[in-house]
Amino acid sequence: MEAGLRMFKQVTLVGCGLIGSSIARVLKQKKLAETLCVVEKADVVARVQTLGLADRLSTKLSDVVPGSDLVILCTPIGTYESLANELASVISADAILTDVGSVKGVVITALKNVKAHVIPGHPIAGTENSGPESGFAELFHDRWWILTPPADADVDAVKKLSDLYTAFGARVTAMPADHHDQVLAMTSHLPHLIAYSIVDTCVKLEGSMQQEVIAFSASGFRDFTRIAASDPTMWRDVFLNNKEAVLEGLQRFTEDLMELQKAIRWSDGEKLFDVFSRTRAIRRSIIDQRQHIPEEDKKKR
Amino acid sequence: MEAGLRMFKQVTLVGCGLIGSSIARVLKQKKLAETLCVVEKADVVARVQTLGLADRLSTKLSDVVPGSDLVILCTPIGTYESLANELASVISADAILTDVGSVKGVVITALKNVKAHVIPGHPIAGTENSGPESGFAELFHDRWWILTPPADADVDAVKKLSDLYTAFGARVTAMPADHHDQVLAMTSHLPHLIAYSIVDTCVKLEGSMQQEVIAFSASGFRDFTRIAASDPTMWRDVFLNNKEAVLEGLQRFTEDLMELQKAIRWSDGEKLFDVFSRTRAIRRSIIDQRQHIPEEDKKKR
Repeated sequence: MEAGLRMFKQVTLVGCGLIGSSIARVLKQKKLAETLCVVEKADVVARVQTLGLADRLSTKLSDVVPGSDLVILCTPIGTYESLANELASVISADAILTDVGSVKGVVITALKNVKAHVIPGHPIAGTENSGPESGFAELFHDRWWILTPPADADVDAVKKLSDLYTAFGARVTAMPADHHDQVLAMTSHLPHLIAYSIVDTCVKLEGSMQQEVIAFSASGFRDFTRIAASDPTMWRDVFLNNKEAVLEGLQRFTEDLMELQKAIRWSDGEKLFDVFSRTRAIRRSIIDQRQHIPEEDKKKR
Repeated sequence: MEAGLRMFKQVTLVGCGLIGSSIARVLKQKKLAETLCVVEKADVVARVQTLGLADRLSTKLSDVVPGSDLVILCTPIGTYESLANELASVISADAILTDVGSVKGVVITALKNVKAHVIPGHPIAGTENSGPESGFAELFHDRWWILTPPADADVDAVKKLSDLYTAFGARVTAMPADHHDQVLAMTSHLPHLIAYSIVDTCVKLEGSMQQEVIAFSASGFRDFTRIAASDPTMWRDVFLNNKEAVLEGLQRFTEDLMELQKAIRWSDGEKLFDVFSRTRAIRRSIIDQRQHIPEEDKKKR
């Protein structure tokens, strides 16, 4: 994308885990930033250096944020408030400040004392892996990137950020933060909670039974363990910051599960067959919208 | 495996869906049967013929079962009783009769009037796809194949069946049928029920919300839809035939989920972090035992 070339003078990524390091890789690959800075904890800085992901590396915001025209928070949501205190004194007022957190309602509040163009965002992409080694430049390709600009957001700043993510290969859309949090509660937070929960049920089984569940996991359980291997800190913060929508989704899920439980108890085969048939249609819609992983629908054991 | 060459004179597969057609493919590839027969419904017979999977094809058991030294039922469990009535008069008394069903406790009862070496079995392998086109010879490679021979089973017959599946590349083990049903309730039946349930929760959402859940499914929900796209008839029969163990597993799961719900409601971040951390260990055990899909742990969006 020609328009994308060197779109920003200096980009600072705060945090360089799966998402941050994927952003670093695609920024480099497509030459979208003149200078790329990364802020990380001391032990991670060394790994980012080995990977050659950044032009400038530091453990301190004050070293690299001044002069940056784009700052992206790629740390767990629980860190935002303390980051905001530090950012307030070093960020330029005409810089764009965004994040990649999975909950959006809390972001504006957490960053309210920072004078900059605050435009929260969320890429709908990820894997269960963590750390700077786990990222890759194609992570965002064909995936959605949701922006939740506040009502008074600067139109040009939103456009510029949207163009950047489009240059990443993502499909960019915008919606109100509270709506984002409701949708993601269903599509992401609830599935993760359920996966964590069923794997935890296995953790609590007696030793021999647990060994057998692991040995025979290829029959379904395995897919849940992959989701339940996601980063614990990130997910703790998600649930603490999207409580209401998650509890509401959980309520709906529990009611539906109880219906299936009843159908099993009363041997209602017709009811079971009906539910199991209509859920297939949803899978087809996802494939139609190219939000699946094509290799998964080929041979697979 | 040299010993495997032409191990059986005539093998009849009753049903040629994902599992049946995978067995047909590996039998052919490794030349394990002199003659391979398939019994299917009229419309499927034509597809099996096009695929060239069998030496002899019929819609009737009486055409191909006489003379077979191995008969494998690869149809949903709900069909076993009526199949047993037909089999009783045509199967040879020294033939081995086995199946591939996901529940084992009910099999001996369903087949009690058939005079043959009845050795129920269950390959712990599969995909969400159905039909003769979806099978492949490598499906069983490195996967477990559980046999649940009755206490008075013929030792030589069990050995012969075990050798066959070993020749498929599977790891063969034996256990009592009721134990199998308890383990599989946790490792397979419960995960499928939960996946069906959460996808059904999405089916019931208002139209626009449902469209958004589909669009943003890459954030977790997608993995559940793959499981919830499994064959409805097969899974209806699983739940109708393993009621007690599934309801018991569901009870444990619900209790654990309620604990997480409580932790969210009371903002107990420590509890959430603890649970999300210990579930990671289970994933590592699965990888250690090579029961995962290695490609899944590479780059993945």
